[in-house]
Amino acid sequence: MSTTTSEGHSERPGRIMAGEVAEQPAVLRRILAEGAPRIRATAAAIAERKPRFVLLTARGTSDNAALYAKYLLEVRLGLPCGLTSMSTTTAYGAKPSLTDVLVITVSQSGGSPDLVASTRAAREAGAITLAVTNNPDSPLAAVSEYHVDILAGPEKALPATKTYTASLLSLYLLVEGLRGGEGAPAHVLPGLAEEILARGDEVRRLAARYRFAERMVITSRGYGYPTAKEAALKMMETSYIPALSYSGADLLHGPLAMVDNISPVIAVVTDGRGGEALQPVLDRLRGRGADLFVVGPKPQVEAASAGFVLPTEGVAEEVQPILEILPLQLLAYEVTIARGQDPDAPRALAKVTETR
Amino acid sequence: MSTTTSEGHSERPGRIMAGEVAEQPAVLRRILAEGAPRIRATAAAIAERKPRFVLLTARGTSDNAALYAKYLLEVRLGLPCGLTSMSTTTAYGAKPSLTDVLVITVSQSGGSPDLVASTRAAREAGAITLAVTNNPDSPLAAVSEYHVDILAGPEKALPATKTYTASLLSLYLLVEGLRGGEGAPAHVLPGLAEEILARGDEVRRLAARYRFAERMVITSRGYGYPTAKEAALKMMETSYIPALSYSGADLLHGPLAMVDNISPVIAVVTDGRGGEALQPVLDRLRGRGADLFVVGPKPQVEAASAGFVLPTEGVAEEVQPILEILPLQLLAYEVTIARGQDPDAPRALAKVTETR
Repeated sequence: MSTTTSEGHSERPGRIMAGEVAEQPAVLRRILAEGAPRIRATAAAIAERKPRFVLLTARGTSDNAALYAKYLLEVRLGLPCGLTSMSTTTAYGAKPSLTDVLVITVSQSGGSPDLVASTRAAREAGAITLAVTNNPDSPLAAVSEYHVDILAGPEKALPATKTYTASLLSLYLLVEGLRGGEGAPAHVLPGLAEEILARGDEVRRLAARYRFAERMVITSRGYGYPTAKEAALKMMETSYIPALSYSGADLLHGPLAMVDNISPVIAVVTDGRGGEALQPVLDRLRGRGADLFVVGPKPQVEAASAGFVLPTEGVAEEVQPILEILPLQLLAYEVTIARGQDPDAPRALAKVTETR
Repeated sequence: MSTTTSEGHSERPGRIMAGEVAEQPAVLRRILAEGAPRIRATAAAIAERKPRFVLLTARGTSDNAALYAKYLLEVRLGLPCGLTSMSTTTAYGAKPSLTDVLVITVSQSGGSPDLVASTRAAREAGAITLAVTNNPDSPLAAVSEYHVDILAGPEKALPATKTYTASLLSLYLLVEGLRGGEGAPAHVLPGLAEEILARGDEVRRLAARYRFAERMVITSRGYGYPTAKEAALKMMETSYIPALSYSGADLLHGPLAMVDNISPVIAVVTDGRGGEALQPVLDRLRGRGADLFVVGPKPQVEAASAGFVLPTEGVAEEVQPILEILPLQLLAYEVTIARGQDPDAPRALAKVTETR
């Protein structure tokens, strides 16, 4: 993918990221209209091979998309899953036996040499390999037996936004396809995404509370946990605020000591069982007087210090992550602008990271 | 397990944690002498069942021990592995098919209700279940088909230290046992652990550089990665300094933007392939002028801003994590004492965390 131009940089900070965030409803529509039939066909071909175990391989933002897929595969399909520790193959030359194993590699660019090498090794070890990328002509797509194109269009800002939601929706349709479903609950997403992104002014006002934050804790449980991780990554790579993400259960196992009245907490509360499982954690945080910002249903936002109400009523819990991340992308953007930095051009980052 | 007494608290801050850190050579010796034969027998019984996949379930410090086991299982045994997303079972009622799957649950106390529930569900779903705990009379041990006792003795300080290294060594012996090995490379560990722990004064001097740190990044690759995660957890739960841990490869995919001359970096450099794979990341960090503290071999420490030389020459890379964490436990302790806090009694933590 191309990198940020100095031209884009000088015009208006964050112009490129803001444009790509705004494209998301259109990208979601494109996937549902043009991508879905091919994803279903790919899923049907993979389902015939009857995979018994799934390994997901990815880095950075794509790793958070892979984690979302892990929840779907475990809950919706009952398939045991793991996230790959890539260095076991690339540094230690591990040769796992991968018969009946579906290896899904998620990568926006499809260009990271380590992802290509580990996918090639998996295929040689007998795995069914599937690449989920934004580039059908990439080395990763070439080396994989199956390929899903996430159809997000070129992504130029360094912080990934539209490729994240495009990966989520593509993975959702894939998992539904593996169980012979159509993924009908996804059809409300483009309209709701538009509604959320129209509320930029609301997020701009909320951003003021984090402008001077020195650190931040982001928590969730269940389907919302990948959202917490992705929101933390987005916040760090744009604003450089150290944002720590934990599942609500893990937060109680140690890092809670770090939460006090100077560490604001963002909680991603899904409307469903994940949100219910997070409830005791929210109560504990409120009991400690933590500054609690909720992204979730109205009653949860009203019980918190502040928040962003998500229009999730009647929306299947498993597709809510595709909406939850949107206000948090906007928040990372607005906090970064407020701090006088340029979200399009974080220090030190290249769009294709050449780890080996 | 018992909790910190107010008596212990008032005597001398960190007395309990310091005592448990110092016990580690003796605990390692006890496992090698008394525990190893039983662990080998358990491993032999499990090996006969020919598991094809492994799922590891844990939280907090035990989750870092589980991640270490994941590297061992993938590299040494070629078994595909995953870390369980527990809420898929406890919140969403997922019913995965677990025939041929070995489910290893690691828990110091063996008392967390969610771990017990998810292990019971795994056993009902056909998994081979193994509990690795410090309490053979725990509900977790009772609900699991097999049990490994890590023999660490009662742990009273809230930050887990000796149960971490005891879990690592027990898991190492288990994985070696699964492949019919004896784990001979572990026999140097108690002596080397003693050598390292005798260098407390050195760590006390080094702690001065973090006394006023507002945040910290800890990185590694391969076998050292669980050490980086555990060191970050230890630092956070004792000193409350937000410590972010990343695999070196992931660090380049975003969080590097956050590293600058005010974010000190600790790198755990194993003497072996993990350390080699981390090299480009270290070069990049040095190129950015980062404050780099290395725990690892002498040449790596000399090329960094500061560090702690580990006596790892001739030590098998896969057992080095049992040594690497020791100076980092001391560091968390010393930084916390320097900041006027009590490492024995972090705010808000209970020893057995009752997540459900």
